[in-house]
Amino acid sequence: MEVNKVVTFGEIMLRLSPPMYNKIEQTNEYQAYYGGGEANVAISLVNLGHDVQFVTKLPNNQLGDGAIKHLRAQGVDISHVIRGGDNIGIYFLEHGFGGRPSKVLYNRKHSAFSEMNSEELDFDLIFNNVKWFHVSGITLALSESIRQSTLLALKKAKEHHVLVSFDFNYRAKLWSLKEAKEAFLKVLPYVDVCFATIRDLKDILEYKFDGPDEEYTRELHMMQFAKEFQIDYMFGTDREVISANENILSAFAILRDKTFQTKEYRFNIIDRVGGGDAFASGVISGLLNNYSDFKCAVELGLACSVLKHTLYGDASILKMNEILEFMKSSGRSLIER
Amino acid sequence: MEVNKVVTFGEIMLRLSPPMYNKIEQTNEYQAYYGGGEANVAISLVNLGHDVQFVTKLPNNQLGDGAIKHLRAQGVDISHVIRGGDNIGIYFLEHGFGGRPSKVLYNRKHSAFSEMNSEELDFDLIFNNVKWFHVSGITLALSESIRQSTLLALKKAKEHHVLVSFDFNYRAKLWSLKEAKEAFLKVLPYVDVCFATIRDLKDILEYKFDGPDEEYTRELHMMQFAKEFQIDYMFGTDREVISANENILSAFAILRDKTFQTKEYRFNIIDRVGGGDAFASGVISGLLNNYSDFKCAVELGLACSVLKHTLYGDASILKMNEILEFMKSSGRSLIER
Amino acid sequence: MEVNKVVTFGEIMLRLSPPMYNKIEQTNEYQAYYGGGEANVAISLVNLGHDVQFVTKLPNNQLGDGAIKHLRAQGVDISHVIRGGDNIGIYFLEHGFGGRPSKVLYNRKHSAFSEMNSEELDFDLIFNNVKWFHVSGITLALSESIRQSTLLALKKAKEHHVLVSFDFNYRAKLWSLKEAKEAFLKVLPYVDVCFATIRDLKDILEYKFDGPDEEYTRELHMMQFAKEFQIDYMFGTDREVISANENILSAFAILRDKTFQTKEYRFNIIDRVGGGDAFASGVISGLLNNYSDFKCAVELGLACSVLKHTLYGDASILKMNEILEFMKSSGRSLIER
Amino acid sequence: MEVNKVVTFGEIMLRLSPPMYNKIEQTNEYQAYYGGGEANVAISLVNLGHDVQFVTKLPNNQLGDGAIKHLRAQGVDISHVIRGGDNIGIYFLEHGFGGRPSKVLYNRKHSAFSEMNSEELDFDLIFNNVKWFHVSGITLALSESIRQSTLLALKKAKEHHVLVSFDFNYRAKLWSLKEAKEAFLKVLPYVDVCFATIRDLKDILEYKFDGPDEEYTRELHMMQFAKEFQIDYMFGTDREVISANENILSAFAILRDKTFQTKEYRFNIIDRVGGGDAFASGVISGLLNNYSDFKCAVELGLACSVLKHTLYGDASILKMNEILEFMKSSGRSLIER
Amino acid sequence: MEVNKVVTFGEIMLRLSPPMYNKIEQTNEYQAYYGGGEANVAISLVNLGHDVQFVTKLPNNQLGDGAIKHLRAQGVDISHVIRGGDNIGIYFLEHGFGGRPSKVLYNRKHSAFSEMNSEELDFDLIFNNVKWFHVSGITLALSESIRQSTLLALKKAKEHHVLVSFDFNYRAKLWSLKEAKEAFLKVLPYVDVCFATIRDLKDILEYKFDGPDEEYTRELHMMQFAKEFQIDYMFGTDREVISANENILSAFAILRDKTFQTKEYRFNIIDRVGGGDAFASGVISGLLNNYSDFKCAVELGLACSVLKHTLYGDASILKMNEILEFMKSSGRSLIER
Amino acid sequence: MEVNKVVTFGEIMLRLSPPMYNKIEQTNEYQAYYGGGEANVAISLVNLGHDVQFVTKLPNNQLGDGAIKHLRAQGVDISHVIRGGDNIGIYFLEHGFGGRPSKVLYNRKHSAFSEMNSEELDFDLIFNNVKWFHVSGITLALSESIRQSTLLALKKAKEHHVLVSFDFNYRAKLWSLKEAKEAFLKVLPYVDVCFATIRDLKDILEYKFDGPDEEYTRELHMMQFAKEFQIDYMFGTDREVISANENILSAFAILRDKTFQTKEYRFNIIDRVGGGDAFASGVISGLLNNYSDFKCAVELGLACSVLKHTLYGDASILKMNEILEFMKSSGRSLIER
Repeated sequence: MEVNKVVTFGEIMLRLSPPMYNKIEQTNEYQAYYGGGEANVAISLVNLGHDVQFVTKLPNNQLGDGAIKHLRAQGVDISHVIRGGDNIGIYFLEHGFGGRPSKVLYNRKHSAFSEMNSEELDFDLIFNNVKWFHVSGITLALSESIRQSTLLALKKAKEHHVLVSFDFNYRAKLWSLKEAKEAFLKVLPYVDVCFATIRDLKDILEYKFDGPDEEYTRELHMMQFAKEFQIDYMFGTDREVISANENILSAFAILRDKTFQTKEYRFNIIDRVGGGDAFASGVISGLLNNYSDFKCAVELGLACSVLKHTLYGDASILKMNEILEFMKSSGRSLIER
Repeated sequence: MEVNKVVTFGEIMLRLSPPMYNKIEQTNEYQAYYGGGEANVAISLVNLGHDVQFVTKLPNNQLGDGAIKHLRAQGVDISHVIRGGDNIGIYFLEHGFGGRPSKVLYNRKHSAFSEMNSEELDFDLIFNNVKWFHVSGITLALSESIRQSTLLALKKAKEHHVLVSFDFNYRAKLWSLKEAKEAFLKVLPYVDVCFATIRDLKDILEYKFDGPDEEYTRELHMMQFAKEFQIDYMFGTDREVISANENILSAFAILRDKTFQTKEYRFNIIDRVGGGDAFASGVISGLLNNYSDFKCAVELGLACSVLKHTLYGDASILKMNEILEFMKSSGRSLIER
Repeated sequence: MEVNKVVTFGEIMLRLSPPMYNKIEQTNEYQAYYGGGEANVAISLVNLGHDVQFVTKLPNNQLGDGAIKHLRAQGVDISHVIRGGDNIGIYFLEHGFGGRPSKVLYNRKHSAFSEMNSEELDFDLIFNNVKWFHVSGITLALSESIRQSTLLALKKAKEHHVLVSFDFNYRAKLWSLKEAKEAFLKVLPYVDVCFATIRDLKDILEYKFDGPDEEYTRELHMMQFAKEFQIDYMFGTDREVISANENILSAFAILRDKTFQTKEYRFNIIDRVGGGDAFASGVISGLLNNYSDFKCAVELGLACSVLKHTLYGDASILKMNEILEFMKSSGRSLIER
Repeated sequence: MEVNKVVTFGEIMLRLSPPMYNKIEQTNEYQAYYGGGEANVAISLVNLGHDVQFVTKLPNNQLGDGAIKHLRAQGVDISHVIRGGDNIGIYFLEHGFGGRPSKVLYNRKHSAFSEMNSEELDFDLIFNNVKWFHVSGITLALSESIRQSTLLALKKAKEHHVLVSFDFNYRAKLWSLKEAKEAFLKVLPYVDVCFATIRDLKDILEYKFDGPDEEYTRELHMMQFAKEFQIDYMFGTDREVISANENILSAFAILRDKTFQTKEYRFNIIDRVGGGDAFASGVISGLLNNYSDFKCAVELGLACSVLKHTLYGDASILKMNEILEFMKSSGRSLIER
Repeated sequence: MEVNKVVTFGEIMLRLSPPMYNKIEQTNEYQAYYGGGEANVAISLVNLGHDVQFVTKLPNNQLGDGAIKHLRAQGVDISHVIRGGDNIGIYFLEHGFGGRPSKVLYNRKHSAFSEMNSEELDFDLIFNNVKWFHVSGITLALSESIRQSTLLALKKAKEHHVLVSFDFNYRAKLWSLKEAKEAFLKVLPYVDVCFATIRDLKDILEYKFDGPDEEYTRELHMMQFAKEFQIDYMFGTDREVISANENILSAFAILRDKTFQTKEYRFNIIDRVGGGDAFASGVISGLLNNYSDFKCAVELGLACSVLKHTLYGDASILKMNEILEFMKSSGRSLIER
Repeated sequence: MEVNKVVTFGEIMLRLSPPMYNKIEQTNEYQAYYGGGEANVAISLVNLGHDVQFVTKLPNNQLGDGAIKHLRAQGVDISHVIRGGDNIGIYFLEHGFGGRPSKVLYNRKHSAFSEMNSEELDFDLIFNNVKWFHVSGITLALSESIRQSTLLALKKAKEHHVLVSFDFNYRAKLWSLKEAKEAFLKVLPYVDVCFATIRDLKDILEYKFDGPDEEYTRELHMMQFAKEFQIDYMFGTDREVISANENILSAFAILRDKTFQTKEYRFNIIDRVGGGDAFASGVISGLLNNYSDFKCAVELGLACSVLKHTLYGDASILKMNEILEFMKSSGRSLIER
């Protein structure tokens, strides 16, 4: 039996958005999706052809059932999802338009997942026959007990020789930079593949970088960071915001001794949320197929992220062939008929 | 300046319902309303022609703004609404159909209102020139600090010679019978008009009633209860459930020395939530217009309640003339053109 | 060439209704239909298999185009529709539910049709090869110039040996009883088939009827009325309102020397507007097929009216075979598969 | 490993219904569900707590993906679903109202499933560790090759000692009575549990029954039929149609030597399609839990069927506890809060 | 008590728009908003933090109630709104897309407001403790009696030392250039702040300007105009239309002795209606905060107008901090989370 | 009687699209339109002011009725539409966005039209008093019997001196290049006006073109092709795809001895389907008005096509004056009010 299963660990929330770019204060209707960083990565990876398990805790009510049905529909293995606790996490997303920004309003404190403790999960069972484990800084931000569970998971992952990817995903509405630094420094020793930007290193980890050429020093410092924490790959994207409806995106890969930069895409946006998760899923998918071809992985991640912006909902549900056709067409779209 | 303002005190929540009688686990859309027992009474009373203030606390975000706009649209005075705290209370309502019951799923723990403390409100200012104060058991159930605030409000109301109405409104999903009993016994000494049923007295207050003729003893015992707590009027409804879409409703008034029973209506239902609040608002409206005419008040309350079932949302927005026409037509409806 | 075309003459309006039984003051959405008494009769008659022309005036804008497309879609001949004037008539319909009545709010004053004058139409051309002309009291109510046009139409119809049906259709929101009486007395001498009730005769025409047995005298008086105005047939319905969603309906035919009463149907309602027009269309369809079989005609009219209540919009679009199957099934509905 | 898996075999179609009780010819919008007799039984059984596999063939396009996601969301095992062929079957459902009947319009000829042949499936693998196999007359009606596959499936089922249930489900729009008779006579020797009515025996199998007391002879003849084909249980329902929105339903169980009749429910209807499949699923669920308690099984089937009528879509997604609470409440629904 | 209340005077209409960029002739659904030039200014000013009263007349029916609830929800003081008359003004808005222009279709003739006469309002009461009065050319266009009322209002405003702003807002569908000229010349002597363009001066007031450098002469002539009518400030915008979905906007301020021109924004559009009213509201808000800082006022007006284009409905409901953040971000939008 | 009627011949299908740019696999709702190449040309031509008949076959069910009502609403003459057969053709359209392409999924095999045979139509009657006949390669692709019918139609058209236009419209999902070549070669001898591109000539007809200057040789080769088949005019468009939402379009006309190229438009897109049919309709309309003014015709066709992209649905419903105003405005759109 080939060992190629992926596990992701985090919270899946009910997401509520007013339709038609309305503001929350003027809507009387919400469109409902389920999403969350690690769940989005799981769903996208399944659609890219991988075998993925998502580990979380959901209340034993209809909203928990809804989240389960959403994950199951996409083909995510939910056999280690714990049921219990009171509330599902909820977040409201007000879609921006033009110069009006999107706004996120969390209602996730005291959720079933954030109040879960580490004894509820059997990581030895979870990591049996698993190749890759992915988690992000959002999970760490949720509670002290979740931080403990995550560290336990990382330790167990390493015991089972599982590759670990970690996405910084800092959210100022969830915790302070100082709390994040403390947690990230505990996590980084376990990480093989890291999604972060130079800004994350500066703002959260308080790295001091100086020197005249910013582009050049960025690469130098990130390579140095990768060496320091024995990280195989650093990945990230550069986003230029034209408006809430139009962005420019490129991506980079940084190894301990070399770097790679993609070309950039300029594109229109239906739903920006989950763009980073789609990038991570594309990168992980590429590395799962060939761990040494980081260039292909980062290109795949970027294409997956750009296309995700054309779909409502948090997670990409695009198939590998759709991503590849997009890459071949250089981002132009012809009608298929 | 005539003293005839009404004050109600409680929580207003965001209510989310799947359309088309869908179950929560199958919907990807929610209809949004704002509602809550005392807010519903306030809105209905304004539409019946009274001057009403609703006192609550709402987070200083777009959902709080939405609730404010909803109250203000209806004409409710919101000048004593406190803004602050993290979350708005949310509840999900799955509309039942036929033999499938409606289901309520609360997500209101740790809401801004439930975590408010009594120093945030200046009840001397609030009760200035006020004639009537209404509150219900739901408010009491929310937290210890809210119970303290409510008792303070009741004490202040009495100091300002304000009439007090109290609706038992017991919700098993919010607290235990034992907790309710303890709280209600503290509240009852302040109450002039009480909305409750014989079942409430038995189940919550643990009254023991025996005797052969239930209908007869019910009246006897409720009269005795009214006497014990010096309550002017007890009001309540008897509901017979044919299906989730069809009910039969009648109402009663019980004084310390006499009783009155209305005829019953059989009617179809669009939205049952808030039916009790509409009843309370109709009764209060009647008593505000003429405190001694309890028969008129209970008939008005019943008609208001029956008609509320024909509207989506928690609160009745029907005008007095619509209620009166319904009462004249004996519940039949002719097209107006 | 067989002469069997029908002509109807009146106004077609834009109708706007809040969805989901909402009240106008709470909606932010309207469902749009086009409808009006004589237009409804025309549409239903086409669907029952007849060749029908509708004569009206519509503004030369997109709303007028919309009305034209609606009529044309149904197969109504619109070759004599005049285009011009400023406004289309609009009416708002608030659907009632249970004991809450439906409400109609007109916005039709100064519409293009109501300001049309009789020179704009060439009735000699219109009535060429026509068998039947239908008009109702609503058309008469709209303006003095429309009353003149209608009288001219009736005169011309008689010159071309066209059968004339007239539906009283009194609307208190459009004109007074006194105005209606004056107009109706001018119209009645031209009428062969008349849709009216004993109440119309009493309230509008101020007939005084006395006697002990109301049911019996009703028939006597209506037969007498038919004789007085040389009317071939009087038709009407008796409606008992259970609620806004459930009615009981039966129908009657009265000749100069005999009467006929149908059995009654009890049925649920989606949209009551146009129920009377559907009745008229069914009766006219029956008489067009066989002018002497008034029993069949009234049964057809009643079935058509009952079924119309199950469709949104003003007009019945039911086919003759659907009506006949309903009549055979005695009003029960089996799924066809 | 306990052997208690259920397998069902048939077609799952895209179902398209106009919203708001509109007729197909007037809609510009369709609500989409996926459904089909055996798929509905599979989905309901999973929701009642069983382990169920659905075997079918679906085209390898987005509509096939949609059906897969629908089945997977509900927890149905789809590991033996074949992908290939051109078209998914489609059917249009026009919801009736009151006296206007629902109408089904099939567009399923030449679907991928109907053109599947028996070599595409490995029934030895499919029936490994399986306890129950369910199929209906709709599957048989689709094509000659599907009839062959079904007979092969039945033969293999018996080889693996799998219990077989068969639902007559005759659809006049799919095949003739004569074709059905020929196919059913080949299938019946394999059947342990049969869903049929006396009318099916008369109309399809051309049994001649005479005698004065119809109710009594019905039972006699069905018992005799059960004996003739060595069937353990015959189940069926009696439906009385009040209107498209209101029916009365009761059920019966007939053994070779005794009979049982349930009480009847009168109930309102949201969506009648799949009511029979819900009945079958409830009965099968009861028998899976206790094969000898046919009374409990038929009561469960009836309750499941009645409640299914309160949900949009073809399949019941109700949990066992919801069914049991409904049975306890005798069909009345109280709000849960 | 500080005198800083704003009063605006005009008509608020029901606005009906087909969704999804449909044309009126193809829609069967309308989205409903309430709007009108001066009402839009009032709503935007309240959301920017000012105390605003809107003076109008609305029919005493559900549509009037709806307009009242809309205004009240936003916090507009409606204590001087007169109720009465027959009709609410209605307008249809067909949203353009790309090269297809938006179209407005009025149905406002004979509205309650347009038939109001000046005795119905007590301007002495209205202007008590008021700092600013705003009205536009649309109000003047509606009827002779409204023109009389407006002139009376202006006279009374001046008596109460109220600052007056006037927006030309010429609408060719409402009146002729000649009628506008006559009315504007009567109004201008009362105006302190004027919203107009050089084109308005040329086309309506028939100013003749010549000279080689248009940009330069524009400023000269507008300064001269300001001097002639003793106007403190002239404000206006320059709009370049890329398509119905994308425009470029800049703004200018012209004093008697100097001019100021903003930079330009290029932006995408959801709803262009009310862009001019949002500009006026931003300018007025700036001047209310500091009457001499016209540069800040015009920048605020421009930002408010640009952002308004990203919201459905006639009026901006954006808060001051949203405008300021947009100005800081130079029109780019970052997601807030 | 002037001979200027147009006839088009082909299939009209039910088109189903998920709203909000959703993918088919994630939608539970479809928007329904009716469309098909030749039907689209017919509808657009009627809206441009011509008298047009559409010839097809539709099943005698509600979906066929829906298609009829759609055609009739637009004013298309449907007096030669045959009713019969089993199924209406259906196609699913997944709207692309940005770099995600639109996808078409056909479900039209075995449709009533594709199984029609030539005896069902009386082309002598159809072509009586007809000036123009239009058909496209899609019709030819549907079945052998339709190919026969089309050839018969072309032969009869020529007998009646009817001008013939033919649009290559090659669809790879319907037939092979080889099949298309065979059919097209039979059709071309009848063609007066041909819609095709150089790519069609190369790929389908296997013309070999060489030479250094592609732009130049394209014109040469197409002129040569026109000469070879005695075609009066070749028309086509060049499309540059920026994204699924933004394209650039220009058009050309090629005669036997000269060529003409329009300028290009860059525009946003709501719905690209039917853009080619709108082009053909604009060209045909221009030529119907003046057969020799090919420049005006191609400009009209291009403007009609560009504007069609701003409307949902397959067919342009724009009036001639809307096209002309767009041409005058150079593609910019100003609000009309």
